[in-house]
Amino acid sequence: MYPTPLRNLIDELGRLPGIGPKNAARLAFFLMRSSRDDAERLARAIAEMKEKTTLCPVCCSVAEENQLCFVCSDDRRDGSIICVVQDPRDLMVVEKSGSFNGRYHVLHGGLSPLEGIGVENLRIAELIQRVDAGGIAEVILCLNPNVEGDTTGMYLSKVLQPRGVSVSKIASGVPVGGDLEYSDELTLGRAIEGRRTVEG
Amino acid sequence: MYPTPLRNLIDELGRLPGIGPKNAARLAFFLMRSSRDDAERLARAIAEMKEKTTLCPVCCSVAEENQLCFVCSDDRRDGSIICVVQDPRDLMVVEKSGSFNGRYHVLHGGLSPLEGIGVENLRIAELIQRVDAGGIAEVILCLNPNVEGDTTGMYLSKVLQPRGVSVSKIASGVPVGGDLEYSDELTLGRAIEGRRTVEG
Repeated sequence: MYPTPLRNLIDELGRLPGIGPKNAARLAFFLMRSSRDDAERLARAIAEMKEKTTLCPVCCSVAEENQLCFVCSDDRRDGSIICVVQDPRDLMVVEKSGSFNGRYHVLHGGLSPLEGIGVENLRIAELIQRVDAGGIAEVILCLNPNVEGDTTGMYLSKVLQPRGVSVSKIASGVPVGGDLEYSDELTLGRAIEGRRTVEG
Repeated sequence: MYPTPLRNLIDELGRLPGIGPKNAARLAFFLMRSSRDDAERLARAIAEMKEKTTLCPVCCSVAEENQLCFVCSDDRRDGSIICVVQDPRDLMVVEKSGSFNGRYHVLHGGLSPLEGIGVENLRIAELIQRVDAGGIAEVILCLNPNVEGDTTGMYLSKVLQPRGVSVSKIASGVPVGGDLEYSDELTLGRAIEGRRTVEG
């Protein structure tokens, strides 16, 4: 019963992840009430992103068309160590931590047989190619601490180790600043498993 | 550090209500990974909605350009009774209830001195004009049961009653299917205030 153009917009917004029908209507009405300029800026931003954003030809992170990403185009970074992440957003989190100065490889997902996501759906061939091209000493697996991440990590270490690179994975444990009381058993179990001798 | 077109899109999405920066990034990446067609359909839907959706010249609900809304263009509806709502979505809820066969008036908000929303920001002048044009017997106030809705209702009844129309408001009370145990005191208080004699 809404006018067709409005209903179309509600439908399209409802296709976005985490946006239900009610939320889609709320957003559509917000756009209806906002200025023509504001709404058009959003429409243009979508179209332009789609036109001008691609994947970095080296690490498969996001990059502007025909360009390397900001990490791969930076000569000061250590090219002998690759941090493998599932998502460009994970890459940003690692960058913000300031604790890594190597290069990245973005898989764009994790292995999930249940969801039909296999090796061929991820940017794994590109990673193997980079390792085979030589000059890589270590691959750090910085994957989600869940089933998909673990499965992906196991697969990657199996195919990468025979290629003569050291494969490591980030530590699992209690989050810094957290309260042990609220820590789940699985995390605490992993934290105990991964304990380190206190030097002194 | 994201490519500019992607960062622009995240910024624009982050302007939408209820969409924080993390959620905006999630949506932007979803659009980046979805097909060009899907993303362009959303961009086009926004632009088209903005171009082709206006307010109904009679009731101020949403309508396609140069047309009356679906209610005002329906001759079978009772034109002597107007249901006043704050939002076109409220109109849809009343329609779905199937308990109203008159016409509507959409205010597009509620009076809120604190937020600087006064009589001139709402479609109140248009409502008074409709009442003054004659042929209206009753105005039902179907406003949000909160401070803004109550303030708006009090103002409207004050300006409409002297014009010779009967002004009513929807009943407040316990929601049908609800459990009294979970009802708040305010709602239950209103339900008792608005009690009706059981006939029989």
